[in-house]
Amino acid sequence: MRGADIRNGETAETVGALATPALLLDSDRLDRNLARLSSRMQARGVVLRPHMKTAKSIDVARRAHRSGAGPITVSTLAEAEYFARHGFRDMTYAVGLAPHTAERAMRLRRAGIDLKVLLDSPEQATMLGATGRAAGVTPSAFIEIDCDGHRGGLTAADPKLGMVAAILAEAGVKLAGILTHAGESYSLCTPEALIAAAENERAVAVAAAEVLRAAGHECPVVSVGSTPTAHFAKDLTGVTEVRTGVYMFFDLVMHGVGVCTTDDIAISVLATVIGTKPEKGWILVDAGWMALSRDRGTAAQRVDQGYGLVCDLSGKIYPDLIVVQASQEHGILAIRPRSAEALPDLSIGAKVRILPNHACATASQHELYNVVSGGSEMIQARWRRMRGW
Amino acid sequence: MRGADIRNGETAETVGALATPALLLDSDRLDRNLARLSSRMQARGVVLRPHMKTAKSIDVARRAHRSGAGPITVSTLAEAEYFARHGFRDMTYAVGLAPHTAERAMRLRRAGIDLKVLLDSPEQATMLGATGRAAGVTPSAFIEIDCDGHRGGLTAADPKLGMVAAILAEAGVKLAGILTHAGESYSLCTPEALIAAAENERAVAVAAAEVLRAAGHECPVVSVGSTPTAHFAKDLTGVTEVRTGVYMFFDLVMHGVGVCTTDDIAISVLATVIGTKPEKGWILVDAGWMALSRDRGTAAQRVDQGYGLVCDLSGKIYPDLIVVQASQEHGILAIRPRSAEALPDLSIGAKVRILPNHACATASQHELYNVVSGGSEMIQARWRRMRGW
Repeated sequence: MRGADIRNGETAETVGALATPALLLDSDRLDRNLARLSSRMQARGVVLRPHMKTAKSIDVARRAHRSGAGPITVSTLAEAEYFARHGFRDMTYAVGLAPHTAERAMRLRRAGIDLKVLLDSPEQATMLGATGRAAGVTPSAFIEIDCDGHRGGLTAADPKLGMVAAILAEAGVKLAGILTHAGESYSLCTPEALIAAAENERAVAVAAAEVLRAAGHECPVVSVGSTPTAHFAKDLTGVTEVRTGVYMFFDLVMHGVGVCTTDDIAISVLATVIGTKPEKGWILVDAGWMALSRDRGTAAQRVDQGYGLVCDLSGKIYPDLIVVQASQEHGILAIRPRSAEALPDLSIGAKVRILPNHACATASQHELYNVVSGGSEMIQARWRRMRGW
Repeated sequence: MRGADIRNGETAETVGALATPALLLDSDRLDRNLARLSSRMQARGVVLRPHMKTAKSIDVARRAHRSGAGPITVSTLAEAEYFARHGFRDMTYAVGLAPHTAERAMRLRRAGIDLKVLLDSPEQATMLGATGRAAGVTPSAFIEIDCDGHRGGLTAADPKLGMVAAILAEAGVKLAGILTHAGESYSLCTPEALIAAAENERAVAVAAAEVLRAAGHECPVVSVGSTPTAHFAKDLTGVTEVRTGVYMFFDLVMHGVGVCTTDDIAISVLATVIGTKPEKGWILVDAGWMALSRDRGTAAQRVDQGYGLVCDLSGKIYPDLIVVQASQEHGILAIRPRSAEALPDLSIGAKVRILPNHACATASQHELYNVVSGGSEMIQARWRRMRGW
């Protein structure tokens, strides 16, 4: 078994013997999910730059880049530092820049890490130039483009786009390219809508790059990405790279969007039955929001999965059994409203596996992945996660 | 400065110099909150057994028990082991028992820790007896009572109550007493309703204890508790101890219930502005759900606070400015719908503090508390949190 266990005295060799709650990762599903998108992007001649915000694990990153330390995306500078310590060099920090993150990013750049940063305003461009000069390095920055009103970024038509590029050039900052994220695709649920969102993401990104090129700026990278659009894009003409994170593990939200089946979901939370309330149709387990997260992402979807969908120890779904309520260390399992299914007979000490709404949020509640594969009960490895900022 | 900082290279001495997002703890407010409930309980001759599930910090526990290691409640056995390592002896593990937790709890008991466990079924009582015998220790258990249909527990009228007590006696388990939690009080918001919930919690608990005493069982402890009921109880006759956790820090949910003012909320998340979208009325900050948690507990209250209420660096609230959306590392600040307030003028790099919906959930997203007091900008100490199970 690889990796050290950090649970007090834990030496479990099998899933059934694990202290609960515990996070399981099915490495067969992980590998299948990685291969699926990787070959899709390869077929289109586009670089896949996995977003490590979901997994936050060097072991998973190495699984995504089997031949070496390929390009990755990170959501915090603590991630960048962590992956740099483990040999990764080509990274994009895909969160808008502030003065203190600019300084910290330049320290990494000075250490030889090709860390690219993100900005969308003249103020940030000026600040980054000054920070780079003070650190004695040439920064490399993406300009963030807003393709669907989700969050930050400039539209392709915004006159500030050319202004920011000009300031970067003036300030001695390398323009890495443009970067956009179709965050609104998470709220869709039909192939037609997802195909349209992907085409919009592509078209906006390419248009923004063309604006910059027409103004004389080299704009080598056109970076797009969200798990739904990456899986539904019909055409990626003009796009050079795609960033996605949750595709590695998938989750019930992605299932509701229509990107995966429940059999693709690679992580689950192992829990133990600690009580029953037959008169209410309830089974109580020791996985509450601390183990599952407070994410209720499926609440707005066609099928509300509560705090998760319940499976037996082998991973087989109990029809319509969901976590209907969660307090800190308690989950309440019940049959979904208006279902005719019967509550399974689970008594004190029985183990279940819970598929999460949102893999990024659920995984972040845990210190490590207990890795399983091949349908075996044996724990193959324990992979640690990093956390913090 | 006390305690080691774990952020890479962080040596900030002032709040303004901290890398963000970061968790702040105002120790003056903490002390005031602790003193308020402590004196309320002292005046009623009732033991206060703070629930450490909110703070998960030895420094906070010592603040709650200044004269030494007083009684505490824990939500995981990892907490019990952590507090035992730091000298605490008298603990109640207030989550229903499973076979693996019974074994682990008995190991602590064998090490001299007076750890009491919780159960509500004949199966658990039999199992605990056998586990205690195998470990060569006498277990001590509370029977969980259901006072408001919130979660687990037996009603005072359930014939299983006497049955469980009889099995415990037969199996050589010490009956610590009965324990209940008025979890439904979190959904209330008037003093009248809170007073009634507190009286119901008391009355059900005392009735259950009387049933056991009438059947010849010694039932020394009558343990009740929730932050709202503890602050509103008019009469605690027959109750011997009260358990509460979130009262130490308070939060926007407790503010919505009516238990505290916003000036009592002791923790906040420091964040930095990383973008603006004036055309949408948005300010983007670097605190998303990873720093704030996904908890939307105020969504069901009269005033929905989004993902948190925004203050300036000194802690003064910006009227009606809330976190309207959160993704993993991004928060979007905007003025509350239907408010006439203007968006404050905050540019890239400006710092804000965000009051959380749910202190337990927000604090659990962080490794440590940056402790401030006396309105000073100086960080007085860094207190680590424990996590895991």
